[in-house]
Amino acid sequence: MLRIPFEEMEQTICRAFIKAGLPENTAATCARIHTESSCDGVFSHGLNRVERFVDYLHRGWINPQGKAQLQTSLAAWEIYDGEMGPGITNAIFAMNRATDLAKKNGMGMVSLRNTTHWMRGGTYGWQAAEKGMLAICFTNTETCMPPWGARSGAIGNNPFIMAVPAANGQHIVLDMAMSQYSYGKLQVKRLADQQLPYDGGFTTDGALTCDPASIEESRRILPTGLWKGSGMAILIDLMASLLSGGNHTAAIDRLEQGSCAACCQVFMAFDPLQITSSNFVKNAIQDTIQQIKSAMPAEEVTEILYPGEQSLRNRKENRQLGIPADASVWNRVIELAVI
Amino acid sequence: MLRIPFEEMEQTICRAFIKAGLPENTAATCARIHTESSCDGVFSHGLNRVERFVDYLHRGWINPQGKAQLQTSLAAWEIYDGEMGPGITNAIFAMNRATDLAKKNGMGMVSLRNTTHWMRGGTYGWQAAEKGMLAICFTNTETCMPPWGARSGAIGNNPFIMAVPAANGQHIVLDMAMSQYSYGKLQVKRLADQQLPYDGGFTTDGALTCDPASIEESRRILPTGLWKGSGMAILIDLMASLLSGGNHTAAIDRLEQGSCAACCQVFMAFDPLQITSSNFVKNAIQDTIQQIKSAMPAEEVTEILYPGEQSLRNRKENRQLGIPADASVWNRVIELAVI
Repeated sequence: MLRIPFEEMEQTICRAFIKAGLPENTAATCARIHTESSCDGVFSHGLNRVERFVDYLHRGWINPQGKAQLQTSLAAWEIYDGEMGPGITNAIFAMNRATDLAKKNGMGMVSLRNTTHWMRGGTYGWQAAEKGMLAICFTNTETCMPPWGARSGAIGNNPFIMAVPAANGQHIVLDMAMSQYSYGKLQVKRLADQQLPYDGGFTTDGALTCDPASIEESRRILPTGLWKGSGMAILIDLMASLLSGGNHTAAIDRLEQGSCAACCQVFMAFDPLQITSSNFVKNAIQDTIQQIKSAMPAEEVTEILYPGEQSLRNRKENRQLGIPADASVWNRVIELAVI
Repeated sequence: MLRIPFEEMEQTICRAFIKAGLPENTAATCARIHTESSCDGVFSHGLNRVERFVDYLHRGWINPQGKAQLQTSLAAWEIYDGEMGPGITNAIFAMNRATDLAKKNGMGMVSLRNTTHWMRGGTYGWQAAEKGMLAICFTNTETCMPPWGARSGAIGNNPFIMAVPAANGQHIVLDMAMSQYSYGKLQVKRLADQQLPYDGGFTTDGALTCDPASIEESRRILPTGLWKGSGMAILIDLMASLLSGGNHTAAIDRLEQGSCAACCQVFMAFDPLQITSSNFVKNAIQDTIQQIKSAMPAEEVTEILYPGEQSLRNRKENRQLGIPADASVWNRVIELAVI
C-alpha cells in the first residue's frame, strides 16, 4: 500500500479529469472531492473511482459541460435539471443553494434531476455542516439489490445522509447506503481471503452468509436492517424522483448508462441558529456524545464512535502520512493523467 | 383472540380516555388513532397501549389540556411547544400545519418540542398521504438501546417515517424504528415460546441471538442494520432536538417520566403537484411497484410486499371481521372505560 501526499493525489486526478475533457474548474473541484474521500478513508468513491468516472466521460454518459439549470422556484425549495453534468459539481452547487435558502428562510431545499453519480454522499453533509447547517440528503441509483423477500434485484442501494454541525468542526455525519455492505467491500474482503464480520447477503440457496464470494455469485446482497433497509430504499427512490420530477430506479435501469445515470437527488439544509442558540446546540451535541461515549463498551471494543468520527481520524492521519493507495490503482490514474 | 368491531373498540377507548381526564374532542381523536393502529395490525401502539397512556395521564406525565403553541414562524417552517399535551393530537396538528404550509409553499415543515409519545409514527405519514402529500417525520425517544459497540443503553430507537401518496389510496408508507425488533415483539415471541426469525440482539456474553428471552435479559437489543441504525438513531435524536429547540435523548432520560417524555418531533410535507403532474406521480409509483412485484421471490416467499401494503391488507380484513384483541387486554380497557 502506497501513501500519496494529498496535493500530489489531487493534482494527478485533476490532470486525468482535464485530459478526459472536464473544464479546468470542474476538474479541480472533482479532483478535490475524490481526494478528500480517499483521505477520509472512503477509497471506493475516492481514488478508486477515478478510472470509472473517466470511462463514463469517454462513453458520453457524463456531460462535461453540464450544469444545474433552475426549473422551478418555490418559497424555500428550488428544482434543477442537472444536464447530465458531473455529479460532484452539480451536488455541491445544489447543497450550496440549499444552505443559501436556509440562511434566508430557516430551511432550504434543492432537488436535482438528470444528474450523475455524486460519489461519496457524505461530502454534501460535511459541506453543509461546515456552514453551521444541519442537513439531510439522499439520491436514488440503478437497481443493485433484491428487495426483501426477493432473490433478484429490483431496488437501488440509495444512500441517505444526515449531518449535524459541531462548533469545533467535529461534525456528526451519517452516510449510509441501503445495503449492509457494498459490492466494493465484498471484493476487498474476498481478495484478502476474509469473511465479513456479519451476514452480508444470501447464498444462491437462500442462506444468510458472511462469505463475500457467495454473495458476489448470488447477487443477493443484504439490505441493511433486512426489510427495513429494503423499504427505505423504495421510499428514498420514489421521494427523490417525485421531488425532482426525474427518473426513479426502474427508469434509470432502462437508460443502461452505468451507475446513477440521470438520477435524482434531494438536498435539505436547516439553520439551527434561527430557532435556538449556539450554546443550546453545543450543549445538546456534547451531552449526546458524552452519553454515547460513556456507555459500557462491548466485548473487544475499546471505544464507541459516533458517525463521522472515524472519517475525522482518517483525515488527520492521512493528511500527515499521505493517503493510502493501492499501487495498481495509483499507477493507472497516473497513466490517465499523462498528457 | 377476540375480534372487536372498529366502532366498539373506538368508543370503549374513548370512554376510557374521557374517564382519565382527556377533553371529549381530544379523547375521540386519540381513541380513533389507537383503534386505527390496532386495525392496521400495529397492536403495540393501538389497543395494547391504552392502559399505559391512561397511567401516564394519572401520573401527570401527560397534560390533558396541552396544545401545540407557536414559538417561531419562518418561511415554510413553524416551531411549536407541545405543552406536554397528548402526543397524538399534537402530532396530528403538526402534520396538518406542515401540509398547509406545503400547499402554500410547495414544502412545509413543523417541529414540535415538549410533546409526548405519538404512538404509531406511521399515522402521520398516512395523514399526509391522504392529502396527496409526500412526508418525512421522525421523533426522538428515551434511551432504550445500546449504540453500536456498547453493551449498555445510550440511544433511543427513534422512529423514522417516509410516505408517498398513491392516487388509488394505496399509499406507500415506511414506518421504522431504529431497533431491529421492539421489546414488545420480543415479549410476544417469548410468550409464544418462539425464536425470532433473525438475530434481534446479543446475549449477556455478546453473542448475536434469535432468542427473545436472552435479549430481554441482556437489554442488548440490536440496532437495525447494526452500526447503521445506531448511527441513524444518533442523528435523528440530534436533528429532532436542534430543529425544535427541545430535549435530546439524554435530557429525556433525566426527566424520568416514561417513554418519550417532553420529546421532539419533526414533520415535513411536500406537494408533488407543484413541480410535476399527477400522471408523472402515478407512473413512477406504478412502475416502481411493478418492478418490485416482478422480482423473483425468495425461498418460501409467495409475494413481495411494498412498505405499507400489509397495513392496508390488515385494515381491510379487520374492518370486516373485527379487530383482533387479546382478551385480557380488552377486558382491562373495558374496566378503564367504566364510568
